[in-house]
Amino acid sequence: MRKFSIGVDFGTLSGRAVLVDVHTGEEVAESVFAYPHAVMEESLPCGTTLGVDWALQHPQDYLDVFAHTIPDVLRQSGISADDVIGVGIDFTACTVLPVRDDGTPLCFLDEYKSRPHAYVKLWKHHAAQSHANKLNETAEERSEDWLARYGGKISSEWLFPKIWQVLDEDEEIYNAMAHFVEAADWVVWQLTGVQTRNSCTAGYKAIWQGAAGFPSSDFFAALDPRLENVVADKLSCPITPIGQKAGGISPAAAELTGLNPGCAVAIANVDAHVAVPAAKITGTGKMLAIMGTSTCHMLLGDDEKVVPGMCGVVYEGILPKLYGYEAGQSCVGDHFAWFVDNCLPAKYHEAAKSKDLSVHEYMSEKIAEISAGESGLLALDWWNGNRSVLVDVDLTGVMLGMTLATRPEEIYRALVEATAYGTRKIIETFENSGIPVDEFYAAGGISRNPVMMQIYADVIKKPIKIAGSPQTPALGSAIFGAVAAGSAAGGHDSVAAAADAMGKLLDVVYMPRRGEAEVYDALYGEYARLHDYFGRGENDVLKFLKEIRKSIKGE
Amino acid sequence: MRKFSIGVDFGTLSGRAVLVDVHTGEEVAESVFAYPHAVMEESLPCGTTLGVDWALQHPQDYLDVFAHTIPDVLRQSGISADDVIGVGIDFTACTVLPVRDDGTPLCFLDEYKSRPHAYVKLWKHHAAQSHANKLNETAEERSEDWLARYGGKISSEWLFPKIWQVLDEDEEIYNAMAHFVEAADWVVWQLTGVQTRNSCTAGYKAIWQGAAGFPSSDFFAALDPRLENVVADKLSCPITPIGQKAGGISPAAAELTGLNPGCAVAIANVDAHVAVPAAKITGTGKMLAIMGTSTCHMLLGDDEKVVPGMCGVVYEGILPKLYGYEAGQSCVGDHFAWFVDNCLPAKYHEAAKSKDLSVHEYMSEKIAEISAGESGLLALDWWNGNRSVLVDVDLTGVMLGMTLATRPEEIYRALVEATAYGTRKIIETFENSGIPVDEFYAAGGISRNPVMMQIYADVIKKPIKIAGSPQTPALGSAIFGAVAAGSAAGGHDSVAAAADAMGKLLDVVYMPRRGEAEVYDALYGEYARLHDYFGRGENDVLKFLKEIRKSIKGE
Repeated sequence: MRKFSIGVDFGTLSGRAVLVDVHTGEEVAESVFAYPHAVMEESLPCGTTLGVDWALQHPQDYLDVFAHTIPDVLRQSGISADDVIGVGIDFTACTVLPVRDDGTPLCFLDEYKSRPHAYVKLWKHHAAQSHANKLNETAEERSEDWLARYGGKISSEWLFPKIWQVLDEDEEIYNAMAHFVEAADWVVWQLTGVQTRNSCTAGYKAIWQGAAGFPSSDFFAALDPRLENVVADKLSCPITPIGQKAGGISPAAAELTGLNPGCAVAIANVDAHVAVPAAKITGTGKMLAIMGTSTCHMLLGDDEKVVPGMCGVVYEGILPKLYGYEAGQSCVGDHFAWFVDNCLPAKYHEAAKSKDLSVHEYMSEKIAEISAGESGLLALDWWNGNRSVLVDVDLTGVMLGMTLATRPEEIYRALVEATAYGTRKIIETFENSGIPVDEFYAAGGISRNPVMMQIYADVIKKPIKIAGSPQTPALGSAIFGAVAAGSAAGGHDSVAAAADAMGKLLDVVYMPRRGEAEVYDALYGEYARLHDYFGRGENDVLKFLKEIRKSIKGE
Repeated sequence: MRKFSIGVDFGTLSGRAVLVDVHTGEEVAESVFAYPHAVMEESLPCGTTLGVDWALQHPQDYLDVFAHTIPDVLRQSGISADDVIGVGIDFTACTVLPVRDDGTPLCFLDEYKSRPHAYVKLWKHHAAQSHANKLNETAEERSEDWLARYGGKISSEWLFPKIWQVLDEDEEIYNAMAHFVEAADWVVWQLTGVQTRNSCTAGYKAIWQGAAGFPSSDFFAALDPRLENVVADKLSCPITPIGQKAGGISPAAAELTGLNPGCAVAIANVDAHVAVPAAKITGTGKMLAIMGTSTCHMLLGDDEKVVPGMCGVVYEGILPKLYGYEAGQSCVGDHFAWFVDNCLPAKYHEAAKSKDLSVHEYMSEKIAEISAGESGLLALDWWNGNRSVLVDVDLTGVMLGMTLATRPEEIYRALVEATAYGTRKIIETFENSGIPVDEFYAAGGISRNPVMMQIYADVIKKPIKIAGSPQTPALGSAIFGAVAAGSAAGGHDSVAAAADAMGKLLDVVYMPRRGEAEVYDALYGEYARLHDYFGRGENDVLKFLKEIRKSIKGE
């Protein structure tokens, strides 16, 4: 008897459900629903305008994802709700909203619906930067020991800067909320009727760690006396490790989704982290890079080590019983898109069109004809700052070696290579800190580009395996759904067993080519030297240029 | 009674005559003749193919310039040959050809006309690079004292590498030539019937210096025993300072040109150098930059000083009785052209077209809207190596500060600024060596771009004056023609007097703007630091990248 699990992946602009066979991993049906409110950056639905760097969402959109996509995958597949044993979800993070004690979002209430701070703050809401800056200064002054776990810097995208902004700018909303909750946990609450919080977002985005818990109330009082009890007042819910069951589908959720009441629902997860078991990774030594506009690196370790400049290390942050390490590169696909939009002559666009290729496909063909070192170019991949190792948003791009004979495809290839050098730098930083990286896995859009993957293999000198599902996060969520159900219900009792049955890799493995790898060894040596020269204070010209630019633009 | 002088400027692809009033400087008529053989890079007229990096010309084309343009300016202006008192010419250099004792080019003879080495080697004939390399090595080993006068390096474009290539590859041609002569001097010979050699090309291109003469026969024997007597055998003609009279129009030349026999002909000159008096510069402290695809800097000094990395210093190389200093930037207009061809999206080309502007005019409008420092970008102007100060062809371009918000016009402006920083570096190098630069003058195509000239003024912090004639070299040659005629014939007795009467400046002066200059002071400081870091051996990554590129391309 076949059993199924549903994974729902909440992205930035849409939600996607995938119905998966828990024994074979077959993805039987899939359904996508675009958020009607998308990302609100200019104004609320009522017309209230938003400030610079704001990015909000409407929580009704998330409920609509459930209401549309789950019935749709059941209908498409003809599978009975009786054979769906579990549901898992993953979400962007830190995407967070204020709710009442019963889970009702404040923005659902007439009295608050014209108040920006009543809405969901999306991960890329950057208007809490000044709060993040003050938080970091205070943490450094007080030598808070948790700071090292986050590479020495708390991002403005994370929970505490965001809630502090609410308090500072709309205290009434702050007072009216019973909980400030990750959207990931909120949608699970809506499915189960019970509030839970997952260890992944708590660990990576809310400065929480199992034994130590959250930062002290002393620390919060030092930020702002009104924040002293923020944890007790607004985050008062036990935190559950990922891989557990949150509860069963509530009667109301059964009506919304067409699933049976009691169907197992997994503790919430984060889109990048949930991809790890979907790529069949269940242990240490295997780094997964999720490569899209930016790249997120996931790695498991047996111990907690200090790795300079990593985005976070969280016990049970990725998989049960292991330390989950996270790192990132803030500019990968975005890098290539910038180049194509700003630096590519018309004839390349025309040639792509005439060959019926996307311009990136065409450029990939062009760069495949160039050997390692042939362009004479070398770049530092800091067009959007450096997220890991140096953790410095004020760094900017560098390129060397241009001549009058330099062609656009050579520049494009140099940008690809630069991101590969950045990945190698992250790998080496982990390895030098005692966290082995024996194998490299890639997922996300860019992992489907054979030319780029070959360059990466040649640069990092490790074989690269590719996640098999085009919907890696949704498949990962289905894996957690099958684990929440357990073997008694026809599912699995561990993430490892579920990943083994349901996870997928492509048949292809990109092997490093010896000749190219030797050239890249030499080029990477030059990259590393310039990385330190421009990134570690020997020559601060990049920051100086950015400062001048800001002062002239009045930023 | 009005008197006139004719200046003939021999460029790379055409020759141009201008008829000028010697008292007012009025350019009365102008005529251009394109060389029928243009530049021969692939094959000779008979079909013989040429090697890589060859660039030849046909000397008949130069005679045809005289035959077409001089009668044409007389006809156009209606001025009688009786009122033309002098002729001056300037030429590209080092452009050089083998001739018989009577001046007949070897390529005019049936027995040699299918032999590539019988033709004119144009300045940009680069096939003697290996000879230049061996020459430089030998000169360094022997610590030849003349090497310092040329920034430590003799170019493959200059006379001795070229004649050595002839000897090495076609000894019969070497033996058949009575003289190896600059085309500049050869055309004067064709006008006067008498061979002369000018101090400008001899000094800058043939390692000659008044008192010391040429390098010793010991040195030439060390290069190749067959070269021991090259000076005595092939260059045996006295060298005359520029500003003198070469002779009078011969009967044959009178027939060719329509000028009167005996009309004064000036000693030959070089296109860049002859522009100096045309911009009214007749003394020290005034730098003239001739700005086109590359930039050539001319400066006069009272003494011979060692200026690190300058292209040459020659007594009476530019004006009589003064030391002429030359420096250069190998990539200026070429830099902007590369960017427009290789890095500019279609919409910029379309916008230019819709405003009926050239794309450079359109980009100039765009960059005029950007302030100093606003782009956040900084570049080193080494896309075609560094010709002066560092004198290193293996240096390549560098750019810093790019972000995902960087726009094409910001990159374009950064390239313009980079060339201005390069100019400031040259100015400071002269000043630090005791050669004052009090005023800055610009000529050439780029001097007509007000946006770029303003950026240059802000960067170098000196007022910039602009040469007034669009045909500065031809006007300069006419000035020397008027001096060759002398006041007795209605001309002038000194270059200074002729320049005063005939030289021209535009009314506009670009003044440095204080606010912009302050920002550029800071940015130039960063430029200078990177210039030394990448250019003086602290980090040789640029050379390393070029080496790798060459080894992979099998160069």
